[in-house]
Amino acid sequence: MTTEPNALNSVAAEDQLPTYTRRSDQTRYDAQAINSALDEALLCHVAYIDSGDPIVVPATHARIGEELLLRVGPESRLAELAGDGDLALCVTVTLLDGLVLARAEADNTINYRSIVIRGTGSLVKDEEAKRAGLDAVVEHLVAGRSNHSRPPTPEEFAEVVLIRLPLADVALKTRTGPPQDAEEDLALHHWAGVINVRNAYGPPFPSPDLPYDRQMPSQLANYNRSAKPQGYR
Amino acid sequence: MTTEPNALNSVAAEDQLPTYTRRSDQTRYDAQAINSALDEALLCHVAYIDSGDPIVVPATHARIGEELLLRVGPESRLAELAGDGDLALCVTVTLLDGLVLARAEADNTINYRSIVIRGTGSLVKDEEAKRAGLDAVVEHLVAGRSNHSRPPTPEEFAEVVLIRLPLADVALKTRTGPPQDAEEDLALHHWAGVINVRNAYGPPFPSPDLPYDRQMPSQLANYNRSAKPQGYR
Repeated sequence: MTTEPNALNSVAAEDQLPTYTRRSDQTRYDAQAINSALDEALLCHVAYIDSGDPIVVPATHARIGEELLLRVGPESRLAELAGDGDLALCVTVTLLDGLVLARAEADNTINYRSIVIRGTGSLVKDEEAKRAGLDAVVEHLVAGRSNHSRPPTPEEFAEVVLIRLPLADVALKTRTGPPQDAEEDLALHHWAGVINVRNAYGPPFPSPDLPYDRQMPSQLANYNRSAKPQGYR
Repeated sequence: MTTEPNALNSVAAEDQLPTYTRRSDQTRYDAQAINSALDEALLCHVAYIDSGDPIVVPATHARIGEELLLRVGPESRLAELAGDGDLALCVTVTLLDGLVLARAEADNTINYRSIVIRGTGSLVKDEEAKRAGLDAVVEHLVAGRSNHSRPPTPEEFAEVVLIRLPLADVALKTRTGPPQDAEEDLALHHWAGVINVRNAYGPPFPSPDLPYDRQMPSQLANYNRSAKPQGYR
């Protein structure tokens, strides 16, 4: 047998309710890995229920302490549903770390870190919290950017919609390392190993309407957000 | 006003039911862009409802014609629910193409391509279809890999769980190009532009247990899947 206990296709197995409490324990244990993955990822996927159907859409996000902030469109269905009151959400952040090439065809998979957050989302209404939240979401994309851009006008600020989700029910699933081929497969002629995957950034392209003498902040010229790939190397 | 009609935070706005028919029209028009993004993305996010709550988990996938195949764990909740019969799913594939640095803080966003597929998922039970599906999911990760690995044993094959989802109700949302700052902001001293983002791959690391004389297939040494970044450059 060559089943990999950590393969991606076992992710959903951990979502069964009986194991959920255990996952909460794991969460506290892995708080640093969870926070670092949430901070590294540039986007998340937000699932909600609309008229009885599951929907999942991408969003940008930021973490402030033990809360996740989601930025959604002012006219979006998500904003509308959250505006009606508390809304059941599931937010998943997945970082792809590598391609795992196993000798056994069925074991070809990916290395990844995935965080699944379940909870109740609510609109951020308090002005101060919303202002801090917008800064956080922008800073999440590029550190320092909230000070290197023009603050929102009252009209723009009114259009900003943020949803907060407590980081309470959080599960981390990862697969790392080389393929785990069975002993009897090791002599096969197939190549086996890992191709690491990471984001590559830049260089920054100025807007066509940018005056020639505007200086590029150094955090843009040297943009890089991943502390280190946590995949196999 | 500096609101960007194509910003990520307007994605969900398009999910309102009144516009859904229009999106289906857009789908047929953009079939090539949709297929190319589905084929490029290494993973997707699958949303379903479990005991009344929305859940979203990552999965690997492949497209065969007008069907999407999802690979899920044999013991997963998703496999269990799909085993009970047809299951309402929403699958979203998002490719991050760039960071958009606007002069207006609230307009800092990302360039992306996102595909939202809604429909009814069902287990692939037919043996021939399942065999073709497993090959497709593995080929999706690395072209040629199904021939460069050992075919599944009957036990391994029995453990493979694939869910098919018709590519019928599909929506493509994208943001491309530079920030769209308002005329009155163009003279501000802030830098504005785009940092492109793409996946970087490799080099391949052999498994610690790989015999020294195993040759690396050339599609691994030169691995690259993105035809071309469709972001702003």
